Amino acid sequence: MPSFNIGFVIFPDLTLLDFTGPLQVLSRVPGTTTHIVAKSAAPVSSDCGVGLVPTHTFANCPPLDLICVPGGNLGVVDAFCDRDTVEFVRRQARSAKYVTSVCTGAIILGVAGLLKGRRATTHWAFVDLLPLVGATHEKARVVQDGNVITAAGVSSGIDFAFTAAAEIAGEAAARAIQLGIEYDPAPPFDSGSPDKASPAIKSAVIAQGYDKSLSAYRAGLERAARL
Amino acid sequence: MPSFNIGFVIFPDLTLLDFTGPLQVLSRVPGTTTHIVAKSAAPVSSDCGVGLVPTHTFANCPPLDLICVPGGNLGVVDAFCDRDTVEFVRRQARSAKYVTSVCTGAIILGVAGLLKGRRATTHWAFVDLLPLVGATHEKARVVQDGNVITAAGVSSGIDFAFTAAAEIAGEAAARAIQLGIEYDPAPPFDSGSPDKASPAIKSAVIAQGYDKSLSAYRAGLERAARL
Repeated sequence: MPSFNIGFVIFPDLTLLDFTGPLQVLSRVPGTTTHIVAKSAAPVSSDCGVGLVPTHTFANCPPLDLICVPGGNLGVVDAFCDRDTVEFVRRQARSAKYVTSVCTGAIILGVAGLLKGRRATTHWAFVDLLPLVGATHEKARVVQDGNVITAAGVSSGIDFAFTAAAEIAGEAAARAIQLGIEYDPAPPFDSGSPDKASPAIKSAVIAQGYDKSLSAYRAGLERAARL
Repeated sequence: MPSFNIGFVIFPDLTLLDFTGPLQVLSRVPGTTTHIVAKSAAPVSSDCGVGLVPTHTFANCPPLDLICVPGGNLGVVDAFCDRDTVEFVRRQARSAKYVTSVCTGAIILGVAGLLKGRRATTHWAFVDLLPLVGATHEKARVVQDGNVITAAGVSSGIDFAFTAAAEIAGEAAARAIQLGIEYDPAPPFDSGSPDKASPAIKSAVIAQGYDKSLSAYRAGLERAARL
C-alpha cells in the first residue's frame, strides 16, 4: 500500500507550535510519511528564534493526502500575498483527501479559495476575518466541514491532530500516540480562551498588538485580491 | 535590568514537542531572551524530519538563568554519553536560577549530577531510570524540588512552561501567554496517561519498543559512568 503523504507548509515567521504540535502527532501515524515543505530549501525562520530546515520545496513535494497550513502573526500576511505559496496550497488541495489549517493558517486556505461556503475556525482574535474569505466562523477548537478541518489558535493544533490521526488510522492508533506523548494536559491556570480569561487578561493580550495585526491582515487581503 | 536568559539545549534526534512546546511559551515571557543552544552551529535533527537551526553553540552561549533540557528516544543516550553536552549542562546549571527538563531530558540532568537527592519526573515509560541517577520519582506532570523543575512526557513540557513562566514573570503574565496561544486543551480522547489508557493501548505502545529503549538507556548510563 502506498504511504499516506502528510505535508506541512512552512513560511517565514510562522508560529512554531502551530506547526510542531500537529507534526509531533501526525508523524507518528502508522502508514504515513511526513513532508515539511517550503518555498525553497533554505532554513525558514519561526517566531521563537529557532530556524526550521524543510525536507521538500514546493517544486519537489509529492502529491499530498493531507495538507496542513500553520499560522503565525504577520508572516501569514506575507505568505498569503505570495503567489507561489497560495498556488502551491491550491494545487495540492485539489487532490488532497484532507485540507487543514491551524490558527491563522486558515486565512491562507481562505485566500486560496478553499474555505468558500465552509464552516471554519481560526485564532480567537482573528475570527472576524473568516467571512472575508467566504467562510462562516464556528466557535470550536476543531471544526470539520467535509474534507476541510481547521483548528483554533496555536495549541489547538494538537487537538486537531488527534482528530485527524483517528480519521487516517483509526481511534486506537490515535489513542496510542496520545499515550506516547503523554497528552493528558493539566494547565496550571485556566485562561486559555477568551470566555475563560478575565477581562483584564484579555485587554492586556489585545493591547499587545492584535488590533494592528488585524489591520495588516485586512490590508493584505485587499492586496492578495489584486494579485 | 539585564534580560533573563532562557536556554534550550538541543541535540540530534530530540523529540520535537519536548523542545518547541515550552519554547513557544517561554519565548513570550516579558523581560526574557531565549537561546537555542547546540554543540555546533549546524542544523540539528529532530524525531519529526524537520531540522532545527540553533542560535548559539555551547562555546558562545551566555550564562543562562533557566536551562531546559528536552528529551527524546535514543538521541538522549548519545547526548548523555557526550562529555561536552553533559559538561555544558553541568556548568550552566551551577549559576542558573532554574534547572529544568522535559521527558527523558531528566536523564541528561541526572548524568550531569543535578538530580541527586531530588524529587523528579520523566516520561512514564522511563521513570524506573530516575533512581539510577540518584532521584526519587514523584508521580506528577510537573515536579518542582528547589530550583529543579522536571516535566513528564513530551506534551507535559507545555504545562511545565506555564509554571516556569509564572515563576519568572508572575501569574498574570503566564495567563496572558495562555490566552495568546489559546491553551484550553480539549483532547478528543482520554488516553494520555498510563492510568487512563486501556491495557490494550498500553500494551500496544510498550510493544513499539520502550523495552528496547530502556535497555539502551541502562547500557548508556553504565557507559556514561565510565567517562
